[in-house]
Amino acid sequence: MAAALCCGLLDYKTEKFALTRNRRVGLLHRLLQLAVLGYLLGWVLVVRRGYQDTDAAPHVSVITKMKGVSVTRSKDASSRLWDAVDYASPPQGENVLFLVTNFIATAKQAQGTCPESPSVLDGMCTEDVDCPVGNPVVHGNGIKTGKCVMFNATHSTCEIYGWCPVENNTLPRKPLLAEAENFTLFIKNTVNFTKFNFSKGNTLQTNDPTYFKSCTYDPFFNPSCPVFRIGDVVEAAGETFGDLALLGGSISIRIEWNCDLDQPTARCQPQYSFILVDRRYNFRTASYYWDSQRRPYRSLMKLYGIRFDISVHGQAGKFGIIPAAVSFGTGIAFFGAATVVCDLVLLYLDTKADFYWKEKFEELLELGG
Amino acid sequence: MAAALCCGLLDYKTEKFALTRNRRVGLLHRLLQLAVLGYLLGWVLVVRRGYQDTDAAPHVSVITKMKGVSVTRSKDASSRLWDAVDYASPPQGENVLFLVTNFIATAKQAQGTCPESPSVLDGMCTEDVDCPVGNPVVHGNGIKTGKCVMFNATHSTCEIYGWCPVENNTLPRKPLLAEAENFTLFIKNTVNFTKFNFSKGNTLQTNDPTYFKSCTYDPFFNPSCPVFRIGDVVEAAGETFGDLALLGGSISIRIEWNCDLDQPTARCQPQYSFILVDRRYNFRTASYYWDSQRRPYRSLMKLYGIRFDISVHGQAGKFGIIPAAVSFGTGIAFFGAATVVCDLVLLYLDTKADFYWKEKFEELLELGG
Amino acid sequence: MAAALCCGLLDYKTEKFALTRNRRVGLLHRLLQLAVLGYLLGWVLVVRRGYQDTDAAPHVSVITKMKGVSVTRSKDASSRLWDAVDYASPPQGENVLFLVTNFIATAKQAQGTCPESPSVLDGMCTEDVDCPVGNPVVHGNGIKTGKCVMFNATHSTCEIYGWCPVENNTLPRKPLLAEAENFTLFIKNTVNFTKFNFSKGNTLQTNDPTYFKSCTYDPFFNPSCPVFRIGDVVEAAGETFGDLALLGGSISIRIEWNCDLDQPTARCQPQYSFILVDRRYNFRTASYYWDSQRRPYRSLMKLYGIRFDISVHGQAGKFGIIPAAVSFGTGIAFFGAATVVCDLVLLYLDTKADFYWKEKFEELLELGG
Repeated sequence: MAAALCCGLLDYKTEKFALTRNRRVGLLHRLLQLAVLGYLLGWVLVVRRGYQDTDAAPHVSVITKMKGVSVTRSKDASSRLWDAVDYASPPQGENVLFLVTNFIATAKQAQGTCPESPSVLDGMCTEDVDCPVGNPVVHGNGIKTGKCVMFNATHSTCEIYGWCPVENNTLPRKPLLAEAENFTLFIKNTVNFTKFNFSKGNTLQTNDPTYFKSCTYDPFFNPSCPVFRIGDVVEAAGETFGDLALLGGSISIRIEWNCDLDQPTARCQPQYSFILVDRRYNFRTASYYWDSQRRPYRSLMKLYGIRFDISVHGQAGKFGIIPAAVSFGTGIAFFGAATVVCDLVLLYLDTKADFYWKEKFEELLELGG
Repeated sequence: MAAALCCGLLDYKTEKFALTRNRRVGLLHRLLQLAVLGYLLGWVLVVRRGYQDTDAAPHVSVITKMKGVSVTRSKDASSRLWDAVDYASPPQGENVLFLVTNFIATAKQAQGTCPESPSVLDGMCTEDVDCPVGNPVVHGNGIKTGKCVMFNATHSTCEIYGWCPVENNTLPRKPLLAEAENFTLFIKNTVNFTKFNFSKGNTLQTNDPTYFKSCTYDPFFNPSCPVFRIGDVVEAAGETFGDLALLGGSISIRIEWNCDLDQPTARCQPQYSFILVDRRYNFRTASYYWDSQRRPYRSLMKLYGIRFDISVHGQAGKFGIIPAAVSFGTGIAFFGAATVVCDLVLLYLDTKADFYWKEKFEELLELGG
Repeated sequence: MAAALCCGLLDYKTEKFALTRNRRVGLLHRLLQLAVLGYLLGWVLVVRRGYQDTDAAPHVSVITKMKGVSVTRSKDASSRLWDAVDYASPPQGENVLFLVTNFIATAKQAQGTCPESPSVLDGMCTEDVDCPVGNPVVHGNGIKTGKCVMFNATHSTCEIYGWCPVENNTLPRKPLLAEAENFTLFIKNTVNFTKFNFSKGNTLQTNDPTYFKSCTYDPFFNPSCPVFRIGDVVEAAGETFGDLALLGGSISIRIEWNCDLDQPTARCQPQYSFILVDRRYNFRTASYYWDSQRRPYRSLMKLYGIRFDISVHGQAGKFGIIPAAVSFGTGIAFFGAATVVCDLVLLYLDTKADFYWKEKFEELLELGG
């Protein structure tokens, strides 16, 4: 009778002949059922929460703002103050933003002719024939005028038509905005799971207006404060600020929402992670202006700095009758399958049993015939 | 015979002894089969369209353009006209764009010393020792020079080195660009499902060149016109324009494509939804210029306004032989499982039957032995 | 015995009466098992790699940089050189970037009154009453002042208050920056699959510093060089550069990473695809400046050009014990289901067999009773 309880459809028929075998298959059956049960409880219910409807594409909004001021001193000893308007770009405060930490400024460029920079390979020359008229300098700053001119005491380069003078590409050895380490980045992130009509932000709901002006994010002591010190972010990404500030870099900030809406909403909290995706990052930008004679000028800046890419991933689940029914039904089906597998093992794999089986049943059938 | 048709593998054997029981289990079997059939037809075929190959990551392109003009009148009664170039940023017309509705302008800031704004907590002072030289004002506009000076009749603040004069932070009580309610936003969105080599746009294919210049989106009467009136968008997000325009806000516009490519392509149409993700949105931006003595100046603007985040989600399905086979096979397997479950119920749960069963079969086997 | 081996639980019982039928069902059973095996091996293991854990949401970083110079000649024969700072925007080098290929420049606009452009429908007039004071011109450039004035010899338009003079909308017939075809676009893309702590870039790990300055991407001969010639990209998207450059367009560049981390990482390489998403693309932008009397001016540019949208999709898989167990278990379950289906076919569909079956078994049961 114990065997009859365990392996389903067949084993009872040979009960008398193969009690030992049946016990082994019964054990197999129990193990299979345990595996299915473990899969259902552990994987489907706990890890995957298979009884829930999910929304994995929330409406997401990210608003960022940097704070802090720093003074830079250029070679001619003139100092300049940088505030957020100067060092952060684009100004809109979107999910990609850039903090200047170092720069090369080339003031008052005008269109004209001047020698190409000796750092451009294609601009080097020894005589005029090296500089064919009208050809652009490959990876250079202008169009060759056909002349080879002295750039300085040691180098000759092609004369070009372009924005002159060309950029002086000697970078300061120390980051000019080293104090940017203490700047702060405020990230306001809201997710809206429209399927469940549920919306949540990463900022603490507080009545204290000075809270966001005084707190700093800390993963352990202050995880609800969305004000990040730049130095802390760089460190969390596994880099030292001084190294990254010199030549720039790119850091990815990821905000993960994994919300179980069957639980109190207070437990739906974002997780932040910081990853260094690239060393070296720079770009050039220019301000254009015109003098009183309407001649165009530009002030060129090659900016080195840290680029922050903020990405938000969200998922929310809530009990739903259809997914629950589907998960339950699949579970039942797997239980059934466990039984069938057990029977198949009995039939096919246990050859000795099969021998008895066939023999005895043929007798039975002969009797029946 | 009726019982033999319904519950599979076992019940016929006890037909004579337990016809009533068999009928109950037969009903269970039919119910299970109905559930599986309902799941297959309702969920897999109709809701999930399990017989289709899907492409859920289309190439997406969003191009936006705002239109409209408005005149603002500043305190000194000078009027200024704003057109799209002035109030929309960034100019490229990407999927995130910003419409200025209110602003604080601070013209002709230069680097120098001036008193800090009294709205900055750390800038308040009563004597010089409150302003240690060289320290930046926390959340302020510059570096303290060590002096405590009069800001106005009632407040004393630290003198700072920075962009001077500091921003005057009194916001107009009414949005300066209140007419922005009537501006229009044109959204041109194209999705390309490369897996199926299918591409579609949200703009009506029309030969009338003036169509997009005269129509306005309406969810019921004009769902194919991609020109959105700003006031309508704000309203659809559940907010009144006047409130949002004063201090700014952020609205998420979501375009959903859910295309069944087994049906006529005309039925593949986008759905728009509008959600208010945040109240209050502002940022600062500056134009830099130089006077004839090459001194740098900037014109600072604190811009309040509405930010639109446009996100596109798309999914397309088309009949595919492999997903159809997999769905069909899984369905058959579930049918089989229903039978097994039914048999198990018969064997294990119906104890009385089991008693008869065992008894009678042992007789049978004894006979057979 | 062959039949007993193939169709599971029932067929052996009627072995004597229906050997032919059993052979047919045995064949069905084998076919079903083959189908399940094919599904498991072909679909689950090879195509879907069901034994692997997957990470489909990598941290992604895209940095872009354009190179190249070009000279444009305007109507008044003055030439101007364009370098990357001038023609690429936004300057940050993000995943959406724009290359100017054609433009309409309107220099030195000031706020004032002037006739509306005759290209704006609502700006046309024959007498003053057509221009009600204070109304904005629909899709126009300013606010009507109430006067109808001569625009040129043939057209009369409303006088407006706005940025004057209004833009002259005659586009050059040939793209002014036709040489942009030879510009290059450098795309540096890094993906970071945090689940597996695996990071990879699309740039070749090379010690040759001049490699990226000299190579050009080619899908067959040089797939590891991330420097794309603009002309090649446009061609790969199925368009000719000359056509696209005149009125602009939008091209989607897609980078696909599909990495099997159970294999050598050298085989984890990105695939590039290029798609033309839109013809015609332009936007307006302005530089603001002030003259010595502090009057504001702006220099308006209507820029036509090519917009590149770079999107990165990534997926990585690595052997995982849980997904492997789940896939294996599901496979076993399907095998079991194949047997059950076979039995059901035997019982229900083969009516002749059923007849024999019932008859013979009733004899058997009568015997047993």
